Amino acid sequence: MIPASARIWPPCNIYSSAEIGENVSIGAFTEIGPSVRIGNDARIGAHCFIPEGVTIGEGAWIGPRCTFTNDRFPPSPKDKWETTVISAGARLGASVTVLPGKTIGKDAMVGAGSVVTKSIPPGETWAGVPARKIKKRRK
Amino acid sequence: MIPASARIWPPCNIYSSAEIGENVSIGAFTEIGPSVRIGNDARIGAHCFIPEGVTIGEGAWIGPRCTFTNDRFPPSPKDKWETTVISAGARLGASVTVLPGKTIGKDAMVGAGSVVTKSIPPGETWAGVPARKIKKRRK
Amino acid sequence: MIPASARIWPPCNIYSSAEIGENVSIGAFTEIGPSVRIGNDARIGAHCFIPEGVTIGEGAWIGPRCTFTNDRFPPSPKDKWETTVISAGARLGASVTVLPGKTIGKDAMVGAGSVVTKSIPPGETWAGVPARKIKKRRK
Repeated sequence: MIPASARIWPPCNIYSSAEIGENVSIGAFTEIGPSVRIGNDARIGAHCFIPEGVTIGEGAWIGPRCTFTNDRFPPSPKDKWETTVISAGARLGASVTVLPGKTIGKDAMVGAGSVVTKSIPPGETWAGVPARKIKKRRK
Repeated sequence: MIPASARIWPPCNIYSSAEIGENVSIGAFTEIGPSVRIGNDARIGAHCFIPEGVTIGEGAWIGPRCTFTNDRFPPSPKDKWETTVISAGARLGASVTVLPGKTIGKDAMVGAGSVVTKSIPPGETWAGVPARKIKKRRK
Repeated sequence: MIPASARIWPPCNIYSSAEIGENVSIGAFTEIGPSVRIGNDARIGAHCFIPEGVTIGEGAWIGPRCTFTNDRFPPSPKDKWETTVISAGARLGASVTVLPGKTIGKDAMVGAGSVVTKSIPPGETWAGVPARKIKKRRK
């Protein structure tokens, strides 16, 4: 379900069971897997990989080359897969990898190149490998 | 050589000199370079880059966005390129980068987002940047 | 502007306002954004993401899966975007991410998997997350 208001840069692979919101933009070379839900006004960068089990909230900003996952100890049977939630307004920098089963809170920010191994509370800024809370935002 | 039992999600770039085993699956946006060998039943995720000089063993599981290399101090003449071996049953999480000339042992496991700078013995679990041995597997 | 001497492996997305030098090679699944400039004889690996605001110098070597950025706190209005300069002869290993507004000096080298958060002086070798100066090059 891709609404007419969405902007998709080819080539992309978007499974037909994915639900894409209004005014979503999706960069080239991105794969959106089965049953993924992407909220209105979200922006998904180029080269992203978003498999089944991931939900992206309204107005979220996902940088280029972000990778999401659903299987902690692959390959697992599908009933062991975990869900990932990127809340409304969250912003992920380029090249972020998110482990399975995590939630990134509303309006949280994740630095470029981070590997997210824990859920991130709303409004916080995290960065690093593994990602940790950043006390003060660098200017 | 792509056997009929292989499942390839387009678009992929697979060089004709690559040897792909039976029942292999390869995700979209993956490049498999010249003379790469992939063993039977291996699973290669989307967005992987597997250049010349890499061998993937039987039943290995390579997560999305894994990157392999063959040239330690690029650009080198081809006779300086090194070979990388991913042994049978090894499992690499998403977004792993493997430096040239390394071997990942049989049934070893590598955490998502790791950069592998040393060879990994069979059966061990490594993670991080650079990857180091994890003593106990997290539940 | 893609000169006849350039070698481009499809599929690539190259914006028509990008300026590509003579003898440049660009790997598959790479995106080159608007107004990007790439100097003569540069080599750009597969799966790279090079957005507007980035300049790649003559003879630079950009490994596979390198990611460049232009917006420090996305999404910003375009007048806040920063420029990135990769100087002539610089070499970036695989899977390097470069934050906005940085300069990588002439003939500098960046290790695979690094996240570059500071500008790198000419001729130095940096690696890690975040990237730091490496005193002696490993053999």
